[in-house]
Amino acid sequence: MSGSVVIAGLGPGAEALVTPEVQAALDDATDVVGYIPYVARVAERPGLVKHASDNRVELDRARHALELAEAGRRVVVVSSGDPGVFAMASALFEAVEAGPRHWRDLDIRVLPGITAMLAAAARAGAPLGHDFCAINLSDNLKPWELIEKRLRLAVEADFAMAFYNPRSKARPEGFARVLSLLTEACGDARPVIFARAVSTPEEEIRVVPLPECRPEMADMRTMVIVGSSATRIITRDGAPFVYTPRSAG
Amino acid sequence: MSGSVVIAGLGPGAEALVTPEVQAALDDATDVVGYIPYVARVAERPGLVKHASDNRVELDRARHALELAEAGRRVVVVSSGDPGVFAMASALFEAVEAGPRHWRDLDIRVLPGITAMLAAAARAGAPLGHDFCAINLSDNLKPWELIEKRLRLAVEADFAMAFYNPRSKARPEGFARVLSLLTEACGDARPVIFARAVSTPEEEIRVVPLPECRPEMADMRTMVIVGSSATRIITRDGAPFVYTPRSAG
Repeated sequence: MSGSVVIAGLGPGAEALVTPEVQAALDDATDVVGYIPYVARVAERPGLVKHASDNRVELDRARHALELAEAGRRVVVVSSGDPGVFAMASALFEAVEAGPRHWRDLDIRVLPGITAMLAAAARAGAPLGHDFCAINLSDNLKPWELIEKRLRLAVEADFAMAFYNPRSKARPEGFARVLSLLTEACGDARPVIFARAVSTPEEEIRVVPLPECRPEMADMRTMVIVGSSATRIITRDGAPFVYTPRSAG
Repeated sequence: MSGSVVIAGLGPGAEALVTPEVQAALDDATDVVGYIPYVARVAERPGLVKHASDNRVELDRARHALELAEAGRRVVVVSSGDPGVFAMASALFEAVEAGPRHWRDLDIRVLPGITAMLAAAARAGAPLGHDFCAINLSDNLKPWELIEKRLRLAVEADFAMAFYNPRSKARPEGFARVLSLLTEACGDARPVIFARAVSTPEEEIRVVPLPECRPEMADMRTMVIVGSSATRIITRDGAPFVYTPRSAG
């Protein structure tokens, strides 16, 4: 029997957000490969081998998964959220393209998951209910100037914006610059959602007007969503609802 | 016992993509409200009342759901994909904001789902693996000029682009204009993915170079994803993999 690689999204944290499709792939796997905390989410069982690795070794991990599949194993590469959104799927295909030609003929499939921005948006209401963009604020893999250019164009297009990896230990000043740029470019008090550890017991959701946002409101586990100029707040006794109307101009 | 409204995403079509969280809400509901084909996806059972309505009556449907909740019912408003992405959640909050003040204090929750662009992207590889935007091409609720402006800025920002509702019966010429604009603005042969009826028995995935795209390649059930300038194709014996590298400049 020939091997396979499934790149599967575990969602943002809660087991109730893991799709049955992903659960079935995990139940059928011989090997699970991934970043330590994601591999830890997969239940142990006889016959399942877990291969947990550290952060920032995505290409090594991808090659390892492909080698295991080549040897006939049924491998699941686990990713948080959706594997295709700032996660393991691109790294896997980078490894396929750079690897031996016969890797291309392996059985490779991507299984979608609930990505963090959609889980965060759902908690706040519907801030991504109209046109929006998703930007990775980490400058590990792209120049800072490109991030700034994209932010300015996204504001000009009046997209709502979802930011992944807003604040890294290596470059804590980056997010402060993002907030300054947005405050100036937007020129209004549109709502910003800081959604930390969504769907886990540590979940925290804050809604803050853009001019009052501070860099320390985000950490490595925070997803940040900035409304468009049309995004509205519905005040109420509890946490407000934040939504972008369908007809947002 | 007081009522509630849950706006739940059923995913793009396959039952294996419905989250356990959404399934639990359906199992607990007294009433299911939604567009006819989505309500049809919910299994009948004693005690469950189904309220199916036609397309384009989103606000009426939202008000009906809120009135049922006000009367003490446990209502699930079903949406395809993710309810927060060009779906029912924004309409529901529009109805809340315009409705009687006490509607704001109802128990209202949004449950995320697998939105079509992520299911489509997974089938093709990882075309949304770097910064991207999502645009609704329907001009029912926004002027055409705004769609064109956003497309030009998205190309300038070098986002990958996911298009919802590319082609409507009312305005079939719109998508032809989108393709002309993109062919000119991009000036390359980047891959475009036409993903029809993803995760259903009628699923069809085509990968076409931008200059060769034709409007009739999309219909009402098609999701269109256009790569960024960095998006790559991995050729192989079967369908190619399309992915955008993590370091895309």
